[in-house]
Amino acid sequence: MIRAAVMVAPGEPIEVRDLPEPALEPGAVILETILSEVCGTDVHLRHGRLSGVPYPIVPGHVSVGRVVETRGEVTDVENRPIRRGDVVTFLDVHETCHACWYCLVAKQSTRCPKRRVYGITYSADEGPLGGWAERIWLKPGVRIVPLPEGVTPERWMGGGCGLPTALHAIDRAAIRLGERVAVQGSGPVGLSAAILARLSGAGAVIVLGDPPARLEAARAFGADAGIPVAATTAEERIERVREATGGRGADVTIEATGVPGAVREGMRMTRDGGRLVVVGQYTDAGDVTINPHADINRRHLEIRGTWGFDYSHVHRAMEIVARHGEQVRWERSITRAYRLDEMDVALDQVEAGAVVKAVVRP
Amino acid sequence: MIRAAVMVAPGEPIEVRDLPEPALEPGAVILETILSEVCGTDVHLRHGRLSGVPYPIVPGHVSVGRVVETRGEVTDVENRPIRRGDVVTFLDVHETCHACWYCLVAKQSTRCPKRRVYGITYSADEGPLGGWAERIWLKPGVRIVPLPEGVTPERWMGGGCGLPTALHAIDRAAIRLGERVAVQGSGPVGLSAAILARLSGAGAVIVLGDPPARLEAARAFGADAGIPVAATTAEERIERVREATGGRGADVTIEATGVPGAVREGMRMTRDGGRLVVVGQYTDAGDVTINPHADINRRHLEIRGTWGFDYSHVHRAMEIVARHGEQVRWERSITRAYRLDEMDVALDQVEAGAVVKAVVRP
Amino acid sequence: MIRAAVMVAPGEPIEVRDLPEPALEPGAVILETILSEVCGTDVHLRHGRLSGVPYPIVPGHVSVGRVVETRGEVTDVENRPIRRGDVVTFLDVHETCHACWYCLVAKQSTRCPKRRVYGITYSADEGPLGGWAERIWLKPGVRIVPLPEGVTPERWMGGGCGLPTALHAIDRAAIRLGERVAVQGSGPVGLSAAILARLSGAGAVIVLGDPPARLEAARAFGADAGIPVAATTAEERIERVREATGGRGADVTIEATGVPGAVREGMRMTRDGGRLVVVGQYTDAGDVTINPHADINRRHLEIRGTWGFDYSHVHRAMEIVARHGEQVRWERSITRAYRLDEMDVALDQVEAGAVVKAVVRP
Amino acid sequence: MIRAAVMVAPGEPIEVRDLPEPALEPGAVILETILSEVCGTDVHLRHGRLSGVPYPIVPGHVSVGRVVETRGEVTDVENRPIRRGDVVTFLDVHETCHACWYCLVAKQSTRCPKRRVYGITYSADEGPLGGWAERIWLKPGVRIVPLPEGVTPERWMGGGCGLPTALHAIDRAAIRLGERVAVQGSGPVGLSAAILARLSGAGAVIVLGDPPARLEAARAFGADAGIPVAATTAEERIERVREATGGRGADVTIEATGVPGAVREGMRMTRDGGRLVVVGQYTDAGDVTINPHADINRRHLEIRGTWGFDYSHVHRAMEIVARHGEQVRWERSITRAYRLDEMDVALDQVEAGAVVKAVVRP
Repeated sequence: MIRAAVMVAPGEPIEVRDLPEPALEPGAVILETILSEVCGTDVHLRHGRLSGVPYPIVPGHVSVGRVVETRGEVTDVENRPIRRGDVVTFLDVHETCHACWYCLVAKQSTRCPKRRVYGITYSADEGPLGGWAERIWLKPGVRIVPLPEGVTPERWMGGGCGLPTALHAIDRAAIRLGERVAVQGSGPVGLSAAILARLSGAGAVIVLGDPPARLEAARAFGADAGIPVAATTAEERIERVREATGGRGADVTIEATGVPGAVREGMRMTRDGGRLVVVGQYTDAGDVTINPHADINRRHLEIRGTWGFDYSHVHRAMEIVARHGEQVRWERSITRAYRLDEMDVALDQVEAGAVVKAVVRP
Repeated sequence: MIRAAVMVAPGEPIEVRDLPEPALEPGAVILETILSEVCGTDVHLRHGRLSGVPYPIVPGHVSVGRVVETRGEVTDVENRPIRRGDVVTFLDVHETCHACWYCLVAKQSTRCPKRRVYGITYSADEGPLGGWAERIWLKPGVRIVPLPEGVTPERWMGGGCGLPTALHAIDRAAIRLGERVAVQGSGPVGLSAAILARLSGAGAVIVLGDPPARLEAARAFGADAGIPVAATTAEERIERVREATGGRGADVTIEATGVPGAVREGMRMTRDGGRLVVVGQYTDAGDVTINPHADINRRHLEIRGTWGFDYSHVHRAMEIVARHGEQVRWERSITRAYRLDEMDVALDQVEAGAVVKAVVRP
Repeated sequence: MIRAAVMVAPGEPIEVRDLPEPALEPGAVILETILSEVCGTDVHLRHGRLSGVPYPIVPGHVSVGRVVETRGEVTDVENRPIRRGDVVTFLDVHETCHACWYCLVAKQSTRCPKRRVYGITYSADEGPLGGWAERIWLKPGVRIVPLPEGVTPERWMGGGCGLPTALHAIDRAAIRLGERVAVQGSGPVGLSAAILARLSGAGAVIVLGDPPARLEAARAFGADAGIPVAATTAEERIERVREATGGRGADVTIEATGVPGAVREGMRMTRDGGRLVVVGQYTDAGDVTINPHADINRRHLEIRGTWGFDYSHVHRAMEIVARHGEQVRWERSITRAYRLDEMDVALDQVEAGAVVKAVVRP
Repeated sequence: MIRAAVMVAPGEPIEVRDLPEPALEPGAVILETILSEVCGTDVHLRHGRLSGVPYPIVPGHVSVGRVVETRGEVTDVENRPIRRGDVVTFLDVHETCHACWYCLVAKQSTRCPKRRVYGITYSADEGPLGGWAERIWLKPGVRIVPLPEGVTPERWMGGGCGLPTALHAIDRAAIRLGERVAVQGSGPVGLSAAILARLSGAGAVIVLGDPPARLEAARAFGADAGIPVAATTAEERIERVREATGGRGADVTIEATGVPGAVREGMRMTRDGGRLVVVGQYTDAGDVTINPHADINRRHLEIRGTWGFDYSHVHRAMEIVARHGEQVRWERSITRAYRLDEMDVALDQVEAGAVVKAVVRP
């Protein structure tokens, strides 16, 4: 049997349950979980804010584990064999079909209607298909990424799902060397976006967030300035971004907050002709009123919505962590590790913003 | 003296006045006006909706005239001499500085703080610097474009300022062959956007507008379908666009309405991963409420604000009219030509949507 | 048994053989061949110019057929069922792995090492996996595209594999409305590139090719000018392209010749800062000497190699044929249809350039 | 009188001459030269390899000086006044016309036929319009950039004209975070390209060059690996780049050598679907033979020629030096400073590759 923390239904306490061992198909792998994560999405799941979730579920979409069993030959994308004992992570998104209009014509597999996601769209009745479990069942075709030398499980999980999400946003931002970047939000996505903007050669990185400890973290990770949100008005924040950018506003703004009003504020702190990447509105937190004349048209603004990530972002994120890990030390993001029987506490603390990155050590 | 229709102040009747002949500098040109235009911007000017306008002004920013005098050698961008008798148009924007951050670093001369615009930012006290006049004074450096053979003044003015504006929007849209395009708005910008989308090889062109006569015009200009706005709800319009686009929404939507709510509607009629170009919010017509989660982020939408145009758009628009003029016959847009002493009527009728394209024949 | 024209080995005569009926897996489909094609690639195959070809093979990579059998439920990318009696085409490329670095990180499935191609990389011993056969075996996962109403087999095959190849090149060219395009080559790829450039709103389309009949065809398909290659020197051709483009050279040149020297010539007929798409060098026809200073660097030229096509190009090509078919009438490209026992003649005539598009009617 | 080192004619010794003080127009500025540079272009000038040079000339196109006189109000692009005593550099390119097709339609002012260049296209008879002089006459409209706090003349000149040239190339390369970059050439452009690739977050920076001291410099500036050119064959170099890039070749290659054969080699060390920026072929050093099938078409390669730079590159280069100067310390590039009477020696040593960056201290 495999012990797992199960989210039974929205609003219910997390239960630790024993799940039966899965029957492995050729190409399947079993991981012994080293670390999984507790992220904002899990808070959304607890409140029932995502549609189509087949509760009960085993949450945990980004995880690191040790291979304890493989059924037949399994390889990574470089065609290297995956072997017992390897420490790996994997892409939580699975079963994109490579056969629908979005996969084949638009080439946006993140919109594939068949895609399923570990920790979100699999029922616990189907097996340990999420990271809040002693062991994780990787079905055939799940894309596995070994942790290269020097990348510890803590270092990778310090980025967690926020890192490939932020990488996707940074790709969409297409920062040119020296451009000034404002990052709205100091949660895991915002912090990783700030780090990646810095690594991309941004001319300035300004993080707007809360609480002060996270702005401190942002500074430690390389941001040039932090602007506290609770202690300022939107006008003050916009003004401070303008002051830091030659009076014009940010060349690029990355919205990573989850707060609808941040989108309007982001439009206003971006310079005429600049770019705003909206990555933080993962669930419906309500509406916002904008002035399309002043906020979009007259400003010649470019706004780019960004949803999720695909394999390429995980692959490249791992290379980035391997290259810059000693300098960035993502593991500093991890505030606390929880046991499987502490997940209600973990969710409370993530929701309260009391931790930067929370991980599960089953 | 030069007779001109002068907008004395917002809300005041237009007055026909005699302006003194200007003293020509080397490089200046005098045109005898053949046609100028009355466009939505002139209605905005009449209501005082643009800031920094030095009333009294001579409106009319896009015009065609015959050269009656040149002071010294004047050439077009191909280095061909401009001569007495040539029939020409010119870029209304002048005095961009080629010396500021926007001109030189961002390369967005439409944001140059020194730019001035014929018919809008020059006072009538400075001279006949707008098209609602018998003669127009082209100051040195104004960019002149001769009408090539086969392009009559009526054909060029049928497009008017809406054509280079639409070309800028179409450039920003970057339509790939076969993509389905929705155009919101059936005014001069909307009609030209529909024509240009068709010429770009769009897989379908759907125009949403009013009144029925304009949708007829859109069909005559090559649109595949017209959806009346007054007779439908936003939900119905979105549904009809989806039906016409394989259920997914438009690959590209061009907003050319001036109505804030159209921006939200445009977001919702564009497919996941599609592009929305916002070109119609030229003045502040109020706010709109959007849902950033559903309308931008989850949809991976790209929204591109577009302001004005520069010389390149006028140059290329002229080439497009020369090439496709026989097929498109832009002159069909012109509903009526007005005399200088009829400009209040002209403004009334443009504001009421009673004419498609109104021109002045001084 | 299934009659097929088999290319036994390079240099050997084509043999008509009977192949055994394949044992269908779930998801497989059998087509009764209506038309297949004979293209330049087949000439290359006959001469053994492609590496790794498992002779004997059944050539014919783009085909149209009627569904005579399906094993289980089969759908197209829009999730519509494929049924007995449907007239369809299909993507010749199969078995891209969705698991390698090229598929998942670079997102260039045309470089996937596992991809296999109907008519080229399957042995005749594996079954009727090419179009020169009475029936074609579509293995599970082959991407099928039904011919929409109004698209006859002749119309689709008139474009043949040249059409999606040209669409890929045109996408890479990113033609802006009004840009002037030179197309080098008047074979199937060149003709389709000229048609698609015209449909994209090119300001001029100049085709350089031979023999005169093909230049006539290019004109009939909408090219503005044709320049014969045998009757001119490279300098003359470059000069004529410059004359047709305001003295500057083409904004965009599409090389579709198969002749190495055409790449240098293409560089020289493109304007400073223009784009050259190299799509015609499908096999190794030798070297060319260029001057990197004058031909690339000083000219600020952008050169884009283009290899093959993927599903999206076939899907969109079908939509383009459905939309513009009455105007373009691709079927006019078909010079002659051959029987299975005439394939040596067909190859001779294709190689001699005696036909524009040759098809097989088994 | 103003002492200057004058290049009288190709092949002649440099002469130190006294030039008359220029008569300043409104908007003109006089700099007291602090440092100017001796670059590869000056060697080309000495050998008469550039066409249209009006010998005698005062070479030196990138320089730093102290303002000693201004005629009327002069400002920088941020509209800040330029004052006596300011230490500044300036864009060597002047008199682009903002009136021709290249300036206004193609928006490529580097192709403007009217552009003139300090140190290259002005005759010494016109005045001290080059940096190899005690004082430099900045004509009205020359774009001036003050050195910000912390940027010494040595630090800026350590980059010299190679830095904005390399920035232009890096912009064209559009490096995504983590992509692997090969830089061919270890002269000033190559070194700056390597530095900028590193600052852009390249996943690896591999420099191919000579002599060993320059590869050492490249390593000190942040390159991950250096490959000596004289000691290796092309095949070995390509193989070593492949080894350093997962067997596939560089995602991006920057050619900065001046050697024609490097262009072919660059094609071959770039991965399928990668980008090659050709920036080093500034003068005609001869031809190179390529195989367009294997080197461009089949590899889906993108090749981008890059010529010169414009104001934006100098502006942004200064911001980059201000931001990263302490880390990079470009001044380390400067091997030696020469007096005006030592310029023949300086040219000899630059030509011999005996110095990395040579500067003039008049």
